[in-house]
Amino acid sequence: MAQDQGIRARKSENFSEWYTQVVDKADLADLRYNVQGFIVHKTWSTKILREMIRLFEAEMEKTGHEPVLFPSVIPEENLKREGDHFGFVPEVFWVTEKGAGEKLEKKLALRPTSETAFYQMYSLWIRSWRDLPMKKYQTVTVFRNEPVTRPFLRGREFIFMEAHDAFETHAEAEKQIEQDKENMKNVIWERLGIPVMFFRRPQWDKFLGADETYATDTLLPDGKVLQVGSTHDLGQKFSRTFGIKFADKEEKENNVWQTCYGPGIWRIFAALVSVHGDDKGLVLPFEIAPVQIMIVPIFYNDDDRKAVMKKCEKVRKSLSEYRVQIDDSGKTPGEKYHHWEMFGIPVRIEVGGKEAAGDFVTVYRRDLMLKEKVSDKALGKHLEKLPGEILETLKRKAMAYMDENIYSPKNRHDFLRDVSKAGIVRVPFCGTEECARTIQNDTKGTKVRGTSTEKKEKAIGNCIYCNRVAKEVVYMAKQY
Amino acid sequence: MAQDQGIRARKSENFSEWYTQVVDKADLADLRYNVQGFIVHKTWSTKILREMIRLFEAEMEKTGHEPVLFPSVIPEENLKREGDHFGFVPEVFWVTEKGAGEKLEKKLALRPTSETAFYQMYSLWIRSWRDLPMKKYQTVTVFRNEPVTRPFLRGREFIFMEAHDAFETHAEAEKQIEQDKENMKNVIWERLGIPVMFFRRPQWDKFLGADETYATDTLLPDGKVLQVGSTHDLGQKFSRTFGIKFADKEEKENNVWQTCYGPGIWRIFAALVSVHGDDKGLVLPFEIAPVQIMIVPIFYNDDDRKAVMKKCEKVRKSLSEYRVQIDDSGKTPGEKYHHWEMFGIPVRIEVGGKEAAGDFVTVYRRDLMLKEKVSDKALGKHLEKLPGEILETLKRKAMAYMDENIYSPKNRHDFLRDVSKAGIVRVPFCGTEECARTIQNDTKGTKVRGTSTEKKEKAIGNCIYCNRVAKEVVYMAKQY
Repeated sequence: MAQDQGIRARKSENFSEWYTQVVDKADLADLRYNVQGFIVHKTWSTKILREMIRLFEAEMEKTGHEPVLFPSVIPEENLKREGDHFGFVPEVFWVTEKGAGEKLEKKLALRPTSETAFYQMYSLWIRSWRDLPMKKYQTVTVFRNEPVTRPFLRGREFIFMEAHDAFETHAEAEKQIEQDKENMKNVIWERLGIPVMFFRRPQWDKFLGADETYATDTLLPDGKVLQVGSTHDLGQKFSRTFGIKFADKEEKENNVWQTCYGPGIWRIFAALVSVHGDDKGLVLPFEIAPVQIMIVPIFYNDDDRKAVMKKCEKVRKSLSEYRVQIDDSGKTPGEKYHHWEMFGIPVRIEVGGKEAAGDFVTVYRRDLMLKEKVSDKALGKHLEKLPGEILETLKRKAMAYMDENIYSPKNRHDFLRDVSKAGIVRVPFCGTEECARTIQNDTKGTKVRGTSTEKKEKAIGNCIYCNRVAKEVVYMAKQY
Repeated sequence: MAQDQGIRARKSENFSEWYTQVVDKADLADLRYNVQGFIVHKTWSTKILREMIRLFEAEMEKTGHEPVLFPSVIPEENLKREGDHFGFVPEVFWVTEKGAGEKLEKKLALRPTSETAFYQMYSLWIRSWRDLPMKKYQTVTVFRNEPVTRPFLRGREFIFMEAHDAFETHAEAEKQIEQDKENMKNVIWERLGIPVMFFRRPQWDKFLGADETYATDTLLPDGKVLQVGSTHDLGQKFSRTFGIKFADKEEKENNVWQTCYGPGIWRIFAALVSVHGDDKGLVLPFEIAPVQIMIVPIFYNDDDRKAVMKKCEKVRKSLSEYRVQIDDSGKTPGEKYHHWEMFGIPVRIEVGGKEAAGDFVTVYRRDLMLKEKVSDKALGKHLEKLPGEILETLKRKAMAYMDENIYSPKNRHDFLRDVSKAGIVRVPFCGTEECARTIQNDTKGTKVRGTSTEKKEKAIGNCIYCNRVAKEVVYMAKQY
């Protein structure tokens, strides 16, 4: 069984090859579908993604967002309405025909994102201040004609969650931007254990049509950063274009203020795989693991079998509040260990002849690769604590890696040394696009990620690169 | 607030208009999206659909189906591979361009259904009897160029759940067909209270490429039947076309036997609205209601307000295992009742001055439109029983309607009388397509739905219409 051969690349030595192998061998994606850049999500990833989506949706709804489902197609005329946003066109796939080649009356875009679908409806749905705030979201797939693709990092069709909010005032919109950041942190860090940084993107790197773009980045094991979410402050640009107006309490007509927010579900999944995984494969937080506990029976003859299976069943029944399975396939115990470790199942319970005869089981933790004997009586309590402990291990490790890879070089020489090592550099910067482009050219792709929205950092002295007066402290990195 | 004006049509007198109004006023769909035949799913329907999908997915997985997610696009060449199946082409929307009008190398269909996407991968995934059975499913939207559309009944993009199963033998495939029927019944009847009948479709009404089609029908209030699900026995047709082969235990190569099954999520939703709804609007089973209990405070001055709101909060906290909300909007209690009755919320708890001062609340049941006083102490127990009681009411009413509308005419004259009334007729039939077409023409659309798969019914005497020897007992009806 070729799929069980395990990961042959080391994450620390060749991250790219390691990632490719995990995607293939842990049943995450099949890249052999016969349309370039479109992947098949296999069962294991589909299940993990479903759990992740549930966490994000619950968080969305806690802050007043309501689910909707819009069509996958958007007429060309909608995309054209907001001038800047029309910049999406190079990325668009077009539906132009039906049946045996009959032309459609109007060209339809497969949605690259849904601002221009939502906002024409918002202009119908919003009439008065009583209709505000309006906060709707959907979880769908979107389509972009990307030249280069990589599973869960960049695809021609990928899973997308998008919230579109409308407010009476810009102050409320700004509060929403803060709340989106909290939403993101509450799931990606608190539940999935992936450390992130929050940035205000430079003006030349904003979303098409936005006044400001705020984004969430994480750091992958190869030292490149990955944007895993963003909120765009759309101001009144789209509301003017689409005529989204409300009568305020004095019956005066105003345009709404808008934001849109999206946790990048696909990329968060890529980060989950990459940040927590190890040379054996995936390492999953307990809460989102499709199987949280795998029970592995160990026996070498039919006499043992009966007693062992009986105990396995008993243990399984006692753990019915978890997603628990018994692997009673024909493989050897070693093969089973190996296989489910690759799949990242957080806890394994081993039941052999000793366990069947005694009053204990052997519990293996994927995060620490640690075995311990736990008495039958203590098992329930032991497992109550495990999810939290596992998450703590993952958080600690991941945060340590990120911390170690943020550099604060003091001069241009050190800066060039640090960016060549990969990771994130924190430096005083002149704030000009021209300097940003020079740096990008001179350093094989180091880009300005923006200013921190978490810390008020004041620039002292001169720009690390061009030596003009520094205007701000920015973070730079190579990116996905 | 125009949306709160309520339903103005009577379901029994003008079902079509009643349905249109419920879809509009209960926040189910907005038809004003600017691509004909594509609708916006509003919040209330999106939430109900999500609960329904969870029930069906859980049932799928109980019987060994595993979730996957395939691309939305299928190359033209795949659709062409299975000759009969290519009949889908008139219904296909084609993606032909990208960016500023650049032609794609190959035309891509927006999936009308995914046999030809799944099965090319199955030919890669299935190698040996150890890989069988393979049972995968996905929940997605699909696209069909329908000439006439109606929300949740027929659309150009609609929600679709499709399971694709492969087996070693035809006997196993046949067992699966039985299991699919159980799956369907376990949700649509046992959880949603919608009565159904199961048919084997006539040969001239099969799915394109199937050896046999088995289908689930329900009866809508206008006496037309609606297909809400189907399983197709694909035999070895697709497995031969796509080369899905396995080595059996003797190392001999064979083609797999296949079935595909789909509960029609959209249409089941349409049936839920239509079958249980009444002149006030939706009536939802407790289990899938987005809000199960709405607490309505009643007060006429600020003194009352405080005591009433305090009791509302207390009640809400005591019911945290349910989806419960307090409507503290500025509307009058009457407006709130009216609104949430239209939305089909199964239980309302009214809290006024008397309730706040006393040790009881007033509980209203949407299904029976019945109010009763329930003591605070008994409320928990009372609510435990309600979901089951509500479902029983819905089932009883719905089943009575279906039973009343199945006719067994004894001669051609009575047959013509019965089909003119609308409903389902059960008659001896010659079994020929020619006679079926004549009936369809002569009766403005009455069609043969098939033979029952539930009862073994043996034909006696002659065909009800052409008077030739009857071969089978069939059910006929007008259809959606």
